[in-house]
Amino acid sequence: MDRDRILLTPGPLTTTLRTKLAMLRDWGSWDADFNAVTARLRRSLLAVVHGEDTHAVVPLQGSGTFSVEAAVATVVPRDGHVLVLDNGAYCKRAAKLTQMMGRRCTVLPFDEAAPVSPAALDDKLATDGSITHVVLIHCETGAGVLNPLQAVAQVCEKRGKGLIVDAMSSFGALPIDARAVRFDALVAASGKCLEGVPGMGFVFLRKAILDGCAGQSQSLAMDLHDQYVYMEKTGQWRFTPPTHVVVALAEAVVQFEEEGGQPARLARYTRNYQTLVDGMARLGFIPFLDPSVQAPIIVTFHAPGDPRYEFKAFYAAARQHGFILYPGKLTEIDTFRVGCIGAIGPGEIEQAVHAVELALQDLGIASGEPAI
Amino acid sequence: MDRDRILLTPGPLTTTLRTKLAMLRDWGSWDADFNAVTARLRRSLLAVVHGEDTHAVVPLQGSGTFSVEAAVATVVPRDGHVLVLDNGAYCKRAAKLTQMMGRRCTVLPFDEAAPVSPAALDDKLATDGSITHVVLIHCETGAGVLNPLQAVAQVCEKRGKGLIVDAMSSFGALPIDARAVRFDALVAASGKCLEGVPGMGFVFLRKAILDGCAGQSQSLAMDLHDQYVYMEKTGQWRFTPPTHVVVALAEAVVQFEEEGGQPARLARYTRNYQTLVDGMARLGFIPFLDPSVQAPIIVTFHAPGDPRYEFKAFYAAARQHGFILYPGKLTEIDTFRVGCIGAIGPGEIEQAVHAVELALQDLGIASGEPAI
Repeated sequence: MDRDRILLTPGPLTTTLRTKLAMLRDWGSWDADFNAVTARLRRSLLAVVHGEDTHAVVPLQGSGTFSVEAAVATVVPRDGHVLVLDNGAYCKRAAKLTQMMGRRCTVLPFDEAAPVSPAALDDKLATDGSITHVVLIHCETGAGVLNPLQAVAQVCEKRGKGLIVDAMSSFGALPIDARAVRFDALVAASGKCLEGVPGMGFVFLRKAILDGCAGQSQSLAMDLHDQYVYMEKTGQWRFTPPTHVVVALAEAVVQFEEEGGQPARLARYTRNYQTLVDGMARLGFIPFLDPSVQAPIIVTFHAPGDPRYEFKAFYAAARQHGFILYPGKLTEIDTFRVGCIGAIGPGEIEQAVHAVELALQDLGIASGEPAI
Repeated sequence: MDRDRILLTPGPLTTTLRTKLAMLRDWGSWDADFNAVTARLRRSLLAVVHGEDTHAVVPLQGSGTFSVEAAVATVVPRDGHVLVLDNGAYCKRAAKLTQMMGRRCTVLPFDEAAPVSPAALDDKLATDGSITHVVLIHCETGAGVLNPLQAVAQVCEKRGKGLIVDAMSSFGALPIDARAVRFDALVAASGKCLEGVPGMGFVFLRKAILDGCAGQSQSLAMDLHDQYVYMEKTGQWRFTPPTHVVVALAEAVVQFEEEGGQPARLARYTRNYQTLVDGMARLGFIPFLDPSVQAPIIVTFHAPGDPRYEFKAFYAAARQHGFILYPGKLTEIDTFRVGCIGAIGPGEIEQAVHAVELALQDLGIASGEPAI
């Protein structure tokens, strides 16, 4: 049967029909109706982080990585020096784009199975005074680790350094309070925990630093200061917005608010996460991370030790049973990932676990138990 | 009544319901089904320019401007020298993004009411040997001028210069034959004459220069060479694709092919254009451009000379009658623009002219005749 499969991926993810139905209309990007959608969306996004007094939010076309690159380009001066706290693949990507655009960049490496260390950051900042900005990935989707945003922000504030946070996979689900956590830029995207469709990102910029960002970007398309100034003046995007993606996100945010906002979303994802790890444990699977450092966003599981296991075949079998899994992103260890996010609840997760059980049977694998 | 208005704008534009309905499904960006959509779309796009033997096509997230910036960043070496043939607002934007990314850039200015001159280009290239690449906007949407792509390409080939073409608003409607016209990069986007929704661009890159593009981009997100290599290897996009925009474009391209491809689309847009200028002439309106240099994509009209005319009120009145017009983009002269593109035919254009007539009546304006 050609039914839609449930996506257990960290975005794009499964969205509601109501969100998708919002795309059944064409909008003039210059029109007041569309400007009103943009304005309402920006107000709602600011409210999620309680940033109304301290921050402005600037949407940007493209995937989340475009917004991360834009945030670094806009916030860090040409002669700035960025320190990337690295405990995974998305940290490495942030470092790479920083280096490519010509900003000086230093990487502080950490174990990918554990959060980054605010104490180590403090030491590093004490010994290298040339560092101007710190980049933190809030939830490292590579393994699924939750990093200590508040503690890192405190160190940065104490040391007088700017902080750029990639909150791509945490925004909307994990609490972020701009009144209590000082950041210069925080980046997220439409197709993650807000459960919109992919195609745009958005960046919260601290008002106190905004004026100083003028002219810093070496990219016209990614100049968030220019986008901000133009949007404030005209209500419009500088360049053609992905209109259907924008209205879908606006519709998704209405449902987010109706559900009860971030606390309700976190509660649902936490139930999804618990249902997942409990069910997978019954099948013998073991998560890669210690539960104490695991965000309820995406879970990395060790691959089964059975020699008949091969990810592509396992993926295809689970897919046949209606669920889309996600490959692992660790370099050393064979893993796969299962997302807990999207317009799904514990019922779908329970079915997903059953699909994994059937997939193992299809491959003749008795247990998900890893080799280690 | 809350009915959809017809967009007479140069993208986003009115799309078919069939195109929009393709967005009612969520796709895993890692899944084979989605990779097949991307692959089929890329094959279809290459066929539009007959580029199967000579070019590769690389899709990119974001608006068309992102793809223009990516094309310059990818194709032009860091020490390259770009000459922008400037007869309008989009030329100036291309020059600006080239300068911002740190490439040397020279602007060759032309009248915005006329095409750029291949002879003047030839003279310029003869006197300045440091120029490595030329940027041409095929159809300058600022005024609506059609520029001489083939003649410019011949000059570039004769002089051994690279050519980057922004074919944003012409691609799919005006003929472009990669077998007869040599270009290094040609840029277009989803939400224009292919009648998809906005949110992605795509760039045709000449295979002969592709390998030499490695490492030239100073932007990770906009590195088309990297995107190309990754896509050839995996079938996937490097970073989260705008899945719904991609499937909508794929569906729009199927309809494009069913309609009869570029010749049929040009024929329909030409009928739209003729219906528009004939009808507007009956109301006293005069186009800004001489018909001989006018592309049948978007028409700039002189504003009416009547002192009661004011664009915002005129726009609002036409909108009330169901049609979305577009503001002018000329700096010196008061104009407005009307698009001929999108999933509309002469019937809709005839109604649009009638809506303009009613809008004039609403404002108490007797004729569209300009002051000049």
